Amino acid sequence: MVVGLGPGSPDWTTPEVREALNAATDLVGYTTYIDRVPPRPGQHRHASDNRVESERAAMALDLAKRGARVVVVSSGDPGVFAMAAAVLEESADPQWQDVPVRVLPGLTAANAVASRVGAPLGHDYAMISLSDRLKPWEVVAQRLSAVAAADMAIAIYNPASSQRTWQVGAMRDLLLEHRKPDTPVVLGRDVGGPTESVRVVSLVDLDPADVDMRTLLIIGASTTAAVDTPTGTRVYTSRRYHRR
Amino acid sequence: MVVGLGPGSPDWTTPEVREALNAATDLVGYTTYIDRVPPRPGQHRHASDNRVESERAAMALDLAKRGARVVVVSSGDPGVFAMAAAVLEESADPQWQDVPVRVLPGLTAANAVASRVGAPLGHDYAMISLSDRLKPWEVVAQRLSAVAAADMAIAIYNPASSQRTWQVGAMRDLLLEHRKPDTPVVLGRDVGGPTESVRVVSLVDLDPADVDMRTLLIIGASTTAAVDTPTGTRVYTSRRYHRR
Repeated sequence: MVVGLGPGSPDWTTPEVREALNAATDLVGYTTYIDRVPPRPGQHRHASDNRVESERAAMALDLAKRGARVVVVSSGDPGVFAMAAAVLEESADPQWQDVPVRVLPGLTAANAVASRVGAPLGHDYAMISLSDRLKPWEVVAQRLSAVAAADMAIAIYNPASSQRTWQVGAMRDLLLEHRKPDTPVVLGRDVGGPTESVRVVSLVDLDPADVDMRTLLIIGASTTAAVDTPTGTRVYTSRRYHRR
Repeated sequence: MVVGLGPGSPDWTTPEVREALNAATDLVGYTTYIDRVPPRPGQHRHASDNRVESERAAMALDLAKRGARVVVVSSGDPGVFAMAAAVLEESADPQWQDVPVRVLPGLTAANAVASRVGAPLGHDYAMISLSDRLKPWEVVAQRLSAVAAADMAIAIYNPASSQRTWQVGAMRDLLLEHRKPDTPVVLGRDVGGPTESVRVVSLVDLDPADVDMRTLLIIGASTTAAVDTPTGTRVYTSRRYHRR
């Protein structure tokens, strides 16, 4: 079973996932995510740090094959830039053919960040990982250009890490070829978690130094409005499409 | 407060949303969504059928202004092709300036449908509404072409209704200019609800007659694999990007 805890807050974990966690004999996942699950006596916790996804998937399938009730723990939704695809891919290997795999969905980070400022993803949008670890940067750049030219809002996962620092600046410059300088950009960091911060800046002012691996970015379309209110900036993209 | 129940199943409603529903004095929303909330003595239910979104938003803001604890109820995530943008847009009117608006995120239908077959949205993807009620079809067509050419998976909201029947066929023909005929397409209908059905077909075989307003479609990318298993077809899009 591959599950998603939702972002940060336990208030965002669905009852279905909570039940699966309670019934599991074994939890597999990144230490950070496993640590979000309250310990239960008799439950084995296989927390890993830097292991590659396919190895973690194989470990989970092996445990399940030997009779364990395994839950692979992801943050957000497990099907969005997370473990579900890796487990599915690994499970296609003939040695796991008798191991049933189920995915339980979760609240994905883009929707949580969006909710904090209003509804920037209220109209057509794209979900793009900025990581060029598993795909060449030209593919990332091509996709950014395509959705920017088609005037869709964009949620950016994995914008940066301690090793990957130039992609956010490259993305900003590329998007400025299609979007106005004052296009609203939402920076949501650790949303739902103890160190949550959410800010809205203009695209031209997006500073890569403000973005780390715990940040999710939402870039508005031409129809995205940012309105200052007494309780902070509200951002929304109307479902009504006005031609420019 | 604008909340999302998640799709169909109460098992997908977050604890945060459940708490907000319990604390509300007034619920506002489509009859179908209001009917999913267990009745509570003393709570007023303003179920509407065909009213336009902005009127429903104004009604909710008016109730809140007069002191009610109002919850606007959406299915899925309220920020995704739902009520949040409409409420935010309406709340920008000066008469509502003192009414605080909060959005509580929910599990969106695309992630729920994806989980039923594996992880077809495991890599970059786009979320597009096929409705041309609020935007011209040329905009829809341009966005479909852009993301299809950029080889992203696509989740399609509002593919059809009793009145709108030609869009699915037009979309299929347009996507076939960029995608192979055997590209997997997931048809999820009433997912999480009592009449749930999920099927996987090839793009070339997508029959508009099988799609109605309760259906969500997921169209694979070139990297999306469909594998037949004893428990049904599993579909996933690897995070590893292989060039064609």
